[in-house]
Amino acid sequence: MSAAHGLFVTFEGGEGAGKSTQIRLLADALRARGLTVLMTREPGGSKGAEAVRHVLLSGAAEPYGIRMEAILFAAARSDHVEQVIRPALAAGSVVLCDRFMDSSRVYQGVTGNLEQPFIEALERVAINGVVPDCTIIFDLPASVGLERARKRAGGPGEQPDRFEKEELQTHEKRREAFLDIAAREPLRCRVIDATKAQDTIAAEVLAIVEPLLPVGALSHQEHVS
Amino acid sequence: MSAAHGLFVTFEGGEGAGKSTQIRLLADALRARGLTVLMTREPGGSKGAEAVRHVLLSGAAEPYGIRMEAILFAAARSDHVEQVIRPALAAGSVVLCDRFMDSSRVYQGVTGNLEQPFIEALERVAINGVVPDCTIIFDLPASVGLERARKRAGGPGEQPDRFEKEELQTHEKRREAFLDIAAREPLRCRVIDATKAQDTIAAEVLAIVEPLLPVGALSHQEHVS
Repeated sequence: MSAAHGLFVTFEGGEGAGKSTQIRLLADALRARGLTVLMTREPGGSKGAEAVRHVLLSGAAEPYGIRMEAILFAAARSDHVEQVIRPALAAGSVVLCDRFMDSSRVYQGVTGNLEQPFIEALERVAINGVVPDCTIIFDLPASVGLERARKRAGGPGEQPDRFEKEELQTHEKRREAFLDIAAREPLRCRVIDATKAQDTIAAEVLAIVEPLLPVGALSHQEHVS
Repeated sequence: MSAAHGLFVTFEGGEGAGKSTQIRLLADALRARGLTVLMTREPGGSKGAEAVRHVLLSGAAEPYGIRMEAILFAAARSDHVEQVIRPALAAGSVVLCDRFMDSSRVYQGVTGNLEQPFIEALERVAINGVVPDCTIIFDLPASVGLERARKRAGGPGEQPDRFEKEELQTHEKRREAFLDIAAREPLRCRVIDATKAQDTIAAEVLAIVEPLLPVGALSHQEHVS
């Protein structure tokens, strides 16, 4: 029990890639096996982080420039990590997080024009050693993702946030940046073709996560069955 | 003109060491020689930083823990550096700053119980290459500094902030931490005995800064005289 350590899986990729649906499907599948699952997201995910998220998405921090904005994202992530993710992992839970450090690398480091050493130092500060065990990158042509995101935003009450207003070219740059990360860190990252059917993707995601499930949690499942 | 680079001097040490008086005296002496001097302070010093400063000194960020608080300090410093200090130095000014990165090392890294790698990464993020050319550390026995700070706080309208409420033992630890920094970085740091008379200290400070003054600024003075 004291040696328990859960599993930390993050989900990355552009808008409209279907991440949140897949996270829900995976959570259902894992819970059906008796696992404790925590679904969370960034920016946000904890009380302090949600406060910062509100400031960031409203655009209130924009006058202070991209650097301060990036640091505020890091403050939100730090709170999320220390208050929510680290304790859940220590308790043996499976943590599924919609966006994490790779989104910062891509949105701030690649298309946000902040230098690599700055982004790296900021990442070290924010995650403080809590690196994902596995990162699933949902890959999609930028045009498809953007179209999906726009359709979704057209629904009642859902306005596109300022990130979703960005152009196709930027989306393509981000797609390449996510694929670059996957190529550089093949042990941590797995790429999913997000143009496939929903249930095909769900099966692929489960097949990636299954071999990584915490031993303590699996033996707990055996006790239950 | 385009190659102009000013001089960045920071002032560090415990409470009650007389930093702000000495900064004023030095600024007067330098201005009398025709130099452009910018006096500033941390936490604060820019619009974005003052906003964060207000949040921090009010204690509103305390529920989120020391880590998020430290990152918010870094956000404030980053804004201060990018909006105020870097442009002033680029314009050839002498920048005199009351507290800077060494205060974070000491207050958060030594007596704030945050780990060294975290503090170092945060410093890199916040200063982004803008390292002081010279740091003058005002050294004072903790008991003397604390007594002076308390006396000052007793004056009309000046309440001690939450840092000044800390105990003597903590002050002694900080004093040693500042002296450690000076010992490790002798090229950047100079230690001043802050128990000496005000005009003696002022002369010592001027003697430290004089040889470092920007060449462009000095030639400007010659044109004026």
